Amino acid sequence: MTIARTRSTFQPPVMEARRWLEGVDFPPERPLINVSQAAPLDPPPRPLREAMARMVMEDAQAHLYGPVLGLSELRAEIAGRWSADYGGEVRPEQVAITSGCNQAYCAALAALCGEGDEVILPEPWYFNHRMWNDMAGLRTVPLATGDDLLPDPEAAAALITERTRAIVLVSPNNPGGVEYPSDLLAAFRDLCRARGLALILDETYRDFDARTGAPHDLFADPDWDEVLIQLYSFSKAYRLTGHRIGALTASPARLAEAEKFLDTVTICPTSLGQRAALWGMRNLGQWLAGERAEILDRRAAVTESFGRLADRGWRLMGCGAYFAWIEHPFDAASDALAKRLVHEAGVLLLPGTMFTPEGSARGRKQLRIAFANVDRAGIAALEDRLAGFG
Amino acid sequence: MTIARTRSTFQPPVMEARRWLEGVDFPPERPLINVSQAAPLDPPPRPLREAMARMVMEDAQAHLYGPVLGLSELRAEIAGRWSADYGGEVRPEQVAITSGCNQAYCAALAALCGEGDEVILPEPWYFNHRMWNDMAGLRTVPLATGDDLLPDPEAAAALITERTRAIVLVSPNNPGGVEYPSDLLAAFRDLCRARGLALILDETYRDFDARTGAPHDLFADPDWDEVLIQLYSFSKAYRLTGHRIGALTASPARLAEAEKFLDTVTICPTSLGQRAALWGMRNLGQWLAGERAEILDRRAAVTESFGRLADRGWRLMGCGAYFAWIEHPFDAASDALAKRLVHEAGVLLLPGTMFTPEGSARGRKQLRIAFANVDRAGIAALEDRLAGFG
Repeated sequence: MTIARTRSTFQPPVMEARRWLEGVDFPPERPLINVSQAAPLDPPPRPLREAMARMVMEDAQAHLYGPVLGLSELRAEIAGRWSADYGGEVRPEQVAITSGCNQAYCAALAALCGEGDEVILPEPWYFNHRMWNDMAGLRTVPLATGDDLLPDPEAAAALITERTRAIVLVSPNNPGGVEYPSDLLAAFRDLCRARGLALILDETYRDFDARTGAPHDLFADPDWDEVLIQLYSFSKAYRLTGHRIGALTASPARLAEAEKFLDTVTICPTSLGQRAALWGMRNLGQWLAGERAEILDRRAAVTESFGRLADRGWRLMGCGAYFAWIEHPFDAASDALAKRLVHEAGVLLLPGTMFTPEGSARGRKQLRIAFANVDRAGIAALEDRLAGFG
Repeated sequence: MTIARTRSTFQPPVMEARRWLEGVDFPPERPLINVSQAAPLDPPPRPLREAMARMVMEDAQAHLYGPVLGLSELRAEIAGRWSADYGGEVRPEQVAITSGCNQAYCAALAALCGEGDEVILPEPWYFNHRMWNDMAGLRTVPLATGDDLLPDPEAAAALITERTRAIVLVSPNNPGGVEYPSDLLAAFRDLCRARGLALILDETYRDFDARTGAPHDLFADPDWDEVLIQLYSFSKAYRLTGHRIGALTASPARLAEAEKFLDTVTICPTSLGQRAALWGMRNLGQWLAGERAEILDRRAAVTESFGRLADRGWRLMGCGAYFAWIEHPFDAASDALAKRLVHEAGVLLLPGTMFTPEGSARGRKQLRIAFANVDRAGIAALEDRLAGFG
């Protein structure tokens, strides 16, 4: 008897963590601090909502099927923006729009891998990458990282077998918060090219990178699309999480393969969501710069808080984009600790076990805090609660 | 070297057919008649668009992530409606919302099957079902149908092996247009129960069934969810194709498995689309009854047209929901004929080869017409063009 594909993976971590809240009372003087999910709590800014309301009323196409690979204007807008931002050439036919960035990952893997192939993921990883690998019949090969949370290309090279098809990197990193240096990404690109692998680079959090200028020069390589597959999300930049729009940038040949998957699973990304993303790209540049400044300020606040918490044994290992990656000071597994934090501190965060292989020492000791939704006052409250815990 | 999953299937038929139009001029006196896709051409009715515009402006949650299995109010609304319409008991926890009905199919199969398992599909089938089976590593077992396009439970029983996991039926049928009798569906349910299989019933076109009353009594079985998995789409009823909302009705245990797939691929269905579907269910019953009457009138017009075309050798084999399934009178394969019809008759339809196994005699001789977008004048024009062709 075969095992159904879904039986080979675990329950969605965010939904599992939400269940920990069931039956727990959070008194008014100590409300829940929810740092479990990277999700805006506010809707898109009013000018974008007004533009969307007009589209709803006036543009019939905003309600109807569009092309499988997405709205041509949005594909062209991304191509132009990426070309300018990364100092390279990205053409519209190298860009596809997807129903969120998770689907971009799934479609890319479907176009690269068959049953039993291997994919290298640095540890800690984004749990949905691991879950898709499981359900697609792929073997996830963990790539250990050091205290700086950065993967090592030589260590990756040692893991490559004849079944390896891709290395997946996320920068700025979820869950680790670290920004991968440009030369590290170039080294992984060179490794992938030399060994005939795809380099999948998830840049969901690119708009919140603390560095100015291009975070890497991979697109400046005229033959980038032989190796690179880039993923992006519109969920965070314009607060469009509920509209499910992402992007997949790759060679036209790979997109023609991905098209089969996208058509079969969802037919097309939502037509209104794509128009909203396009409007955002064209009109919300200044607004997004303000959002980034706010996130960077919250990052600074988290760094300051964990500087003070260091005396109590808490250790900040990575901090950036929407995330802080933390080592806790207790002799307890992170998943048991996370449940205790709900009850005893009114804090919901995700344990390292959700981002690591079974039995990982890192997973046991470490935790992810998604701080982007929490302002400076909330971060101060989080610091107080962690300081008073245990 | 393994084959990537997407390499095991074909290009999306609707997109391939669109490419046949490239470089072809359609003169103003003979515009293209496009009967290739089951898709409304008009937006949702104005009251629904107005409601959606208000949600966009006033409801922050309409822009943000929701639960993986969908909005609880919409799950409850469907459960209540199905309980009433089918004379049975469907509970909210037996309903999940999906990013369109295709995704409901993919999630159901992921929760049932592993690599190399078998799924029985009557021929002709809906091409995206075949494509998902291919990409999921499943073997599609064709179940022949007779001139009435109805599958035979005894013939299905003879195809079951130890690897068979499900039988998939679509009623009203895409592409065949036929409405499956209630007792035929009950016979398939009994077969599936006896042999430990799931019965997947795709009712995307249920709102356009010509019959009054419940089209089947499967939900009246108190243990229906041991066997039955029902799929539904909001795309057609309320013209929400571009918002990608479908539903998956099954046992809570199966939905808990499907949740892993849905989370990993798209996180959640679109929040605005779900609210629009809910508003439609609560407010557009009368309007939908008018839509159904119009579709049934077009079906009558198609039946009349093919009555006249019978003299020229055209044969109407099935007609209902959005589709007519046709046998052509020429000594030519349907895919070559479909391309000729674009150039010589200004008609875009899909050839039977897109809905059948390779080498199928049925596929070679037959065609699908998606007539729902074409009014009586357009159906008369289609009749003229087919009469004058060849």
